[in-house]
Amino acid sequence: MLEEILKQIETGQLSAEAAAKQLATFENLGFAKVDHHRKKRQGSPEVIFGEGKTSTQIIDISRAMMAKKENILVTRVNKEKAEAIQRTLPDFQYHEIANLLFMMNSGEPVYSNGYIAIVCAGTSDLAVAEEAALTAEAYGLEVRRFYDVGVAGIHRLFAHIDEIRQATVSVVIAGMEGALPSVVGGLVSHPIIAVPTSIGYGANFQGLSALLTMLNSCASGISVVNIDNGFGGAYNAVLIHRLANKQK
Amino acid sequence: MLEEILKQIETGQLSAEAAAKQLATFENLGFAKVDHHRKKRQGSPEVIFGEGKTSTQIIDISRAMMAKKENILVTRVNKEKAEAIQRTLPDFQYHEIANLLFMMNSGEPVYSNGYIAIVCAGTSDLAVAEEAALTAEAYGLEVRRFYDVGVAGIHRLFAHIDEIRQATVSVVIAGMEGALPSVVGGLVSHPIIAVPTSIGYGANFQGLSALLTMLNSCASGISVVNIDNGFGGAYNAVLIHRLANKQK
Amino acid sequence: MLEEILKQIETGQLSAEAAAKQLATFENLGFAKVDHHRKKRQGSPEVIFGEGKTSTQIIDISRAMMAKKENILVTRVNKEKAEAIQRTLPDFQYHEIANLLFMMNSGEPVYSNGYIAIVCAGTSDLAVAEEAALTAEAYGLEVRRFYDVGVAGIHRLFAHIDEIRQATVSVVIAGMEGALPSVVGGLVSHPIIAVPTSIGYGANFQGLSALLTMLNSCASGISVVNIDNGFGGAYNAVLIHRLANKQK
Amino acid sequence: MLEEILKQIETGQLSAEAAAKQLATFENLGFAKVDHHRKKRQGSPEVIFGEGKTSTQIIDISRAMMAKKENILVTRVNKEKAEAIQRTLPDFQYHEIANLLFMMNSGEPVYSNGYIAIVCAGTSDLAVAEEAALTAEAYGLEVRRFYDVGVAGIHRLFAHIDEIRQATVSVVIAGMEGALPSVVGGLVSHPIIAVPTSIGYGANFQGLSALLTMLNSCASGISVVNIDNGFGGAYNAVLIHRLANKQK
Amino acid sequence: MLEEILKQIETGQLSAEAAAKQLATFENLGFAKVDHHRKKRQGSPEVIFGEGKTSTQIIDISRAMMAKKENILVTRVNKEKAEAIQRTLPDFQYHEIANLLFMMNSGEPVYSNGYIAIVCAGTSDLAVAEEAALTAEAYGLEVRRFYDVGVAGIHRLFAHIDEIRQATVSVVIAGMEGALPSVVGGLVSHPIIAVPTSIGYGANFQGLSALLTMLNSCASGISVVNIDNGFGGAYNAVLIHRLANKQK
Amino acid sequence: MLEEILKQIETGQLSAEAAAKQLATFENLGFAKVDHHRKKRQGSPEVIFGEGKTSTQIIDISRAMMAKKENILVTRVNKEKAEAIQRTLPDFQYHEIANLLFMMNSGEPVYSNGYIAIVCAGTSDLAVAEEAALTAEAYGLEVRRFYDVGVAGIHRLFAHIDEIRQATVSVVIAGMEGALPSVVGGLVSHPIIAVPTSIGYGANFQGLSALLTMLNSCASGISVVNIDNGFGGAYNAVLIHRLANKQK
Amino acid sequence: MLEEILKQIETGQLSAEAAAKQLATFENLGFAKVDHHRKKRQGSPEVIFGEGKTSTQIIDISRAMMAKKENILVTRVNKEKAEAIQRTLPDFQYHEIANLLFMMNSGEPVYSNGYIAIVCAGTSDLAVAEEAALTAEAYGLEVRRFYDVGVAGIHRLFAHIDEIRQATVSVVIAGMEGALPSVVGGLVSHPIIAVPTSIGYGANFQGLSALLTMLNSCASGISVVNIDNGFGGAYNAVLIHRLANKQK
Amino acid sequence: MLEEILKQIETGQLSAEAAAKQLATFENLGFAKVDHHRKKRQGSPEVIFGEGKTSTQIIDISRAMMAKKENILVTRVNKEKAEAIQRTLPDFQYHEIANLLFMMNSGEPVYSNGYIAIVCAGTSDLAVAEEAALTAEAYGLEVRRFYDVGVAGIHRLFAHIDEIRQATVSVVIAGMEGALPSVVGGLVSHPIIAVPTSIGYGANFQGLSALLTMLNSCASGISVVNIDNGFGGAYNAVLIHRLANKQK
Repeated sequence: MLEEILKQIETGQLSAEAAAKQLATFENLGFAKVDHHRKKRQGSPEVIFGEGKTSTQIIDISRAMMAKKENILVTRVNKEKAEAIQRTLPDFQYHEIANLLFMMNSGEPVYSNGYIAIVCAGTSDLAVAEEAALTAEAYGLEVRRFYDVGVAGIHRLFAHIDEIRQATVSVVIAGMEGALPSVVGGLVSHPIIAVPTSIGYGANFQGLSALLTMLNSCASGISVVNIDNGFGGAYNAVLIHRLANKQK
Repeated sequence: MLEEILKQIETGQLSAEAAAKQLATFENLGFAKVDHHRKKRQGSPEVIFGEGKTSTQIIDISRAMMAKKENILVTRVNKEKAEAIQRTLPDFQYHEIANLLFMMNSGEPVYSNGYIAIVCAGTSDLAVAEEAALTAEAYGLEVRRFYDVGVAGIHRLFAHIDEIRQATVSVVIAGMEGALPSVVGGLVSHPIIAVPTSIGYGANFQGLSALLTMLNSCASGISVVNIDNGFGGAYNAVLIHRLANKQK
Repeated sequence: MLEEILKQIETGQLSAEAAAKQLATFENLGFAKVDHHRKKRQGSPEVIFGEGKTSTQIIDISRAMMAKKENILVTRVNKEKAEAIQRTLPDFQYHEIANLLFMMNSGEPVYSNGYIAIVCAGTSDLAVAEEAALTAEAYGLEVRRFYDVGVAGIHRLFAHIDEIRQATVSVVIAGMEGALPSVVGGLVSHPIIAVPTSIGYGANFQGLSALLTMLNSCASGISVVNIDNGFGGAYNAVLIHRLANKQK
Repeated sequence: MLEEILKQIETGQLSAEAAAKQLATFENLGFAKVDHHRKKRQGSPEVIFGEGKTSTQIIDISRAMMAKKENILVTRVNKEKAEAIQRTLPDFQYHEIANLLFMMNSGEPVYSNGYIAIVCAGTSDLAVAEEAALTAEAYGLEVRRFYDVGVAGIHRLFAHIDEIRQATVSVVIAGMEGALPSVVGGLVSHPIIAVPTSIGYGANFQGLSALLTMLNSCASGISVVNIDNGFGGAYNAVLIHRLANKQK
Repeated sequence: MLEEILKQIETGQLSAEAAAKQLATFENLGFAKVDHHRKKRQGSPEVIFGEGKTSTQIIDISRAMMAKKENILVTRVNKEKAEAIQRTLPDFQYHEIANLLFMMNSGEPVYSNGYIAIVCAGTSDLAVAEEAALTAEAYGLEVRRFYDVGVAGIHRLFAHIDEIRQATVSVVIAGMEGALPSVVGGLVSHPIIAVPTSIGYGANFQGLSALLTMLNSCASGISVVNIDNGFGGAYNAVLIHRLANKQK
Repeated sequence: MLEEILKQIETGQLSAEAAAKQLATFENLGFAKVDHHRKKRQGSPEVIFGEGKTSTQIIDISRAMMAKKENILVTRVNKEKAEAIQRTLPDFQYHEIANLLFMMNSGEPVYSNGYIAIVCAGTSDLAVAEEAALTAEAYGLEVRRFYDVGVAGIHRLFAHIDEIRQATVSVVIAGMEGALPSVVGGLVSHPIIAVPTSIGYGANFQGLSALLTMLNSCASGISVVNIDNGFGGAYNAVLIHRLANKQK
Repeated sequence: MLEEILKQIETGQLSAEAAAKQLATFENLGFAKVDHHRKKRQGSPEVIFGEGKTSTQIIDISRAMMAKKENILVTRVNKEKAEAIQRTLPDFQYHEIANLLFMMNSGEPVYSNGYIAIVCAGTSDLAVAEEAALTAEAYGLEVRRFYDVGVAGIHRLFAHIDEIRQATVSVVIAGMEGALPSVVGGLVSHPIIAVPTSIGYGANFQGLSALLTMLNSCASGISVVNIDNGFGGAYNAVLIHRLANKQK
Repeated sequence: MLEEILKQIETGQLSAEAAAKQLATFENLGFAKVDHHRKKRQGSPEVIFGEGKTSTQIIDISRAMMAKKENILVTRVNKEKAEAIQRTLPDFQYHEIANLLFMMNSGEPVYSNGYIAIVCAGTSDLAVAEEAALTAEAYGLEVRRFYDVGVAGIHRLFAHIDEIRQATVSVVIAGMEGALPSVVGGLVSHPIIAVPTSIGYGANFQGLSALLTMLNSCASGISVVNIDNGFGGAYNAVLIHRLANKQK
């Protein structure tokens, strides 16, 4: 059908304008997306979800990205796999606590105004918190870390609440009962991305408890990502922070 | 076997002392319980779980108790059923918000020193909170109510925290995400009985969310009763409060 | 302790400045929040969660707000309750499909630049979608509605994808299998707030299916609120949109 | 009873015809099945579910089948077990990614007209996808693989949609949120067998999320098999494809 | 971009052929689907999911379809709603047991060769079974009903097994423990669509028990649709049956 | 094939004996069951599961049974339905607390030696307990009822434990936490059929709690039936009791 | 109190008879149980649940039993632990497939009349089936094994159904969808103890699927024990079989 | 705002008293908590949750506490980790069965009057029971252990019930079906902290069964902590016991 339309323009049976109208439904289809997607901000990384991929697969994908001069962020890589990758691609830096590999190929990310807050309850949530923090930094955001401020010692949270309030977004990470986002949500007025973690035991059910707590929060302005999804929490914050910097 | 032993005492073949030793295993059995149980504190009520009982059944049980001059507490009675009961037994007082009937037959409960705190998050948890408060009062405790102090407006909690701290026990009631006991638990050092409520919707799953939150609380000194079990929360508090008053 | 410090200033033992330092820990406590919270944008409504409140309770709370000249938004009010409230407070406008009451007391909300997209799959998700849309409008946002664009007829989504792309935020609402946010998330690059609905039957388990789908989305930039929480979805969008308008 | 009937025929008291009528209820019983089942299409394999069987057990069963000159397909065999089996039965070919052993004893399967489509979202679903693809090929079907076409990058799906449309059946495999079958189902008009995988983490709950998504799909023409059941997905496709080839 | 290409053809800068190549990515996009979808088999109905729609909404949608001379099938309509609709659109026929409305506008469906089997366990699954049977008939299939042949009285199943075996597809419906599809699957060699129903109590959990049974079936060739989804079961059967009739 | 065999006997090619051997596989098939099943003990009732059947359906089935002079037991019939049935079939006796209808047509059941114990915890489990007790009586068993002997007042259980011990079987019914079968199981040495009930609230999850308790019992000799399945509990006891009476 | 009563008999204030009446509540208490329990049938084993016990603990308990000349059955012992135990106590026989240790110290169990049937679906359920079979044999029962007769090949079941019918009890073991007890239950008229196994994957949820299937069985006369509890299934059968042999 | 008030005192515009009133809301805020918390009873330990912390982290935290002369309790430390810690800090004593490390730095805890009872069902719950017992002892409580008194052998419980009754609090620990707290709760009149354990298999679901049983207990005076949370159970008992000793 398309070829007929094009033929009709060629033979003058149809003006380009009329054809455009007929083809209008094309225009708003998905095909354009690929291009727009390429127009990324300088220094923003391409992301590889490392879990369930072999070191060989990660090396292959990374090489393709290196050829295009892209910064590369690999999440969920354990130490052993990371070392295997680094032996071949020594430019990768490994952040052990966050299980992240990062390689800079297109220059440093361009930093924007303001900062986001990464808030977490205890030392056991550190892996997820650092996955979030390092992800946000890899996208060029300033990150301020507020760790170990859980509800069971709420005065530690209050000592930092003003600095948290001035962030554009907070990523609040909590395992166990997962009450921290509710408390922070009652004290700040910017958007909060809540990240439940699987830290806990027994009736925690691998993070289900924290997840349900966050979804049921009485505080407004909280939305939730998957259990242990530090990357996802940060990525949402990146999108919001850029809006605040008019850098959509 | 028992009769033989008794016979042997009668016939002098066995001394009472020797028999007592033989029967020693009896002594620590459950049978004595009924009597000990009767020795209740003056004015303490007998309790009827009203749900699933007809008004006729409740009236019958109540009459048996009235004959023994006992105060009577009936929980989980809706308005309609309460009115049916009151038509026959007009001495019952109905507390509509808590779905409770109460009748005094053995004089007022004897009040003890100190008070317990009933803390709850929002107006929607009121039914459970009042079930707890009225239960504790029926057992002769002084109750102080701290309602509408949920985590999403935590400053309201702080305005009352000192008075809460001076209670012997707190019964902390919360629906939705159920985070309140964790927060209170981080601020007081007495035992907390946490009561999850079924208030909420969606991923609340009829109180499961609040229940899990409370069981997973990072704060020490919190134990939990069944969803919506205001009576049970209060009854635990009564037992603990009496210990503190040496009135076991 | 506080009184001692104040006394020392009065007696000149301590300068106000030195005292301020000592009291610095106060400054960042929660108490200030009440005031800051008052400084709301002109026309923004106060919100009452109507479910589980009687019409009398809603009327009482509303009157208190009317006295302060605040716009009032009441969510989750069924028709019967709404009519009972309107008989007493006829200035309330009722939106039946969204179960919302709205009353303007402080002038129209101030509209900001840009718009947000409310995207939903089918006519059965309309109640939640309209709760979201009317909430956002009550906060002064321009809302564009993209209804009936579910994945089972994905060409309808493509017909509007460009207009959706130009929104600052999308609130994407879906019941049944809840796949729509994943699809939209693969086509736009702004933040998406996903709202699962309880529409469905059988293995839908009252919205659990849609909720899990959204939490597990492969697409980045999606965060999730509680099942049927149209208000919450919109409120998150309001916070993000204001950031984009530098109106925190 | 049976013997009496037979006796009566022998003695002429009953004609064979009359007896047949009396025994009619026998005729439609299950016993005939064994024979009919033997009449399989040439080259179709016998299948062994390898999980939970020792290599010795698999070897024994295989030998029995080899004696009958049957092609043999063993599913769910890890590398170590496969190698142990191959040491004894070197004619087995091992497909590591799909955990499958295959041995040809009765000649190549007879290929039919048309092809089926195996569609999957990402590289992590490859094991299940290949289990499906190799199974279908072992049954003599032409398979076309459409991998890495997940909803988060839906334009890749569109690039192949016409070729998918011309298949007789699609087996659509997806983990995480499992939305792919819904999307494909909205674009094609042949039957779709959806296979959820256990790929994911957190609120994925080992494939439950994908399973529920697929069962709740708004798109018609989708039916679902067990989590990670690539074999089952393919086997259903084989039955349907044969119908389309009049080869029941 | 599109308009530029069209302009270039008009001005002769680009041949239609070259343009077609450039636009090739368009060709395999979703837009064409609408047309293809229109080419339905004569007499096949358009389907409206009636649950959650008002009688007014159903009437409106029906009128639009009547204008296009389409047969209309409305599922999940209770008696009261059906009667309200029939008062306005008296051409609708109501099947009470299956909660279905049907209206013929484009002539009878064209019947194909062969038949499908609808097999169900007990009288309580009748509503779902009839939803399936009437749906298939509305699409022009011959349906043979085998009701009340559940596993607890398996000899009744055997009495009909040969007739079931000769169907092209079976839709097997079962509540309670849901074992029937496994048993049928062990006796026939064509594809089986299993439909769990919510019939049962206690540990049935609204059909979960039957659903899990069917997903875990040891018998090959079984795929499953949502609980109580008689329509979906039948629709899958329709697609498969048409393949067998080369009427894709 | 069958007909050929029969023909061969007729024509003398095959002796009846040889044929019998060839047909041996028939002999042990299910078809014989119908007859054997008819040989029931005098007075044993036929059972109709009343839930989900209309009064008309129950009347029809009952009439068919009355024609065969069978005793009839209808379970799960609420009062309203029962009265409708009794208006047509006044010979039915209704047991309101157990929701049972019973009609004697073939004389009283024949009573056997010994008795079974029906043990239950509280008055709220009475409906299920009476369904069990009346069922067992309808099958001609002597039943002894031990009600209101729950674990929270375990001395009441001990008062009757010897009489319980002398039963052939115990059916132990409990809701809430469902601990009673474990306790009884530690005190008796005959088989126990445990029946969980849906009595409870909150974390009871409609009987799930009691069901899990019973399945996990540390006491040996306990097996479990579905939640609220008083009939099933009794029917198992009937089968066991008959074995003890050599009346299989 | 007891001592006073005894004293009164000694001093003649109370007759033994009168005392006996007063102490009547003692008589029916639990204490007597220990003795009755000792009176076990000759050769019946004492049972140790081996899981979670160290080999040293099992050796210690075994030695205490050996001193009392008791046969010993240890369940859930893996090979390694078994060998460690056998090194010290070489009289133990190990059944590897069933993970059982058995030692005869008081002579062979006395065999009773009749047999029980152990029926299971596939080779993967063998461990549980053998745990059941060997347990029953250790208690002196004749066991007939009917393995590999699952519903997906139901003709194999029919080949043996008569022999199964003549058992006193059947223990029916099944994993995956767990439908076998329903089918057997429809064919026999003695009690069935159903044992779900954790064999399966995906939506099997570690045996939950089979457990629910069995609890929801339409066939009467089926009761269920915990997942993988072969011992429990057999022990119930032992109790019932003894009743049938009047050997309570 | 605070600084202004202080300034006004300095300049005499405001008296200290008047300022104190204005600042009153400060006084009852959380900040004071740190100090009050320091005033602990002599010898009470600081607690470290060892799970998920490395031995290095535990050593670092311990050293900080040692510097402050605090007793240290580390829970959930496996043997390997404990030994690594002891190599550096040899003053730690390791209790292997309870997975606890303890170090005394501030002198022995001060013992109070009375004792608490730790009651558990079987040897498999020993780890949790000892975690509870040693925790309570570390806090200076006298502990009496009542192990192996589960409901399946309830006479063992009765042998000790009087001694249990005289405790101030009972911590009752049970896995499997978790019925023990209900039974104890029916026999004593002091508060019971119930601790479910994850001991069990199959339908135990890692302790869920025991947890639900305890939450649904019919006995009053029972509250529950998380699965396997021996420490939490004991800590609640410590708080209650201190109240009974007026040592809040």
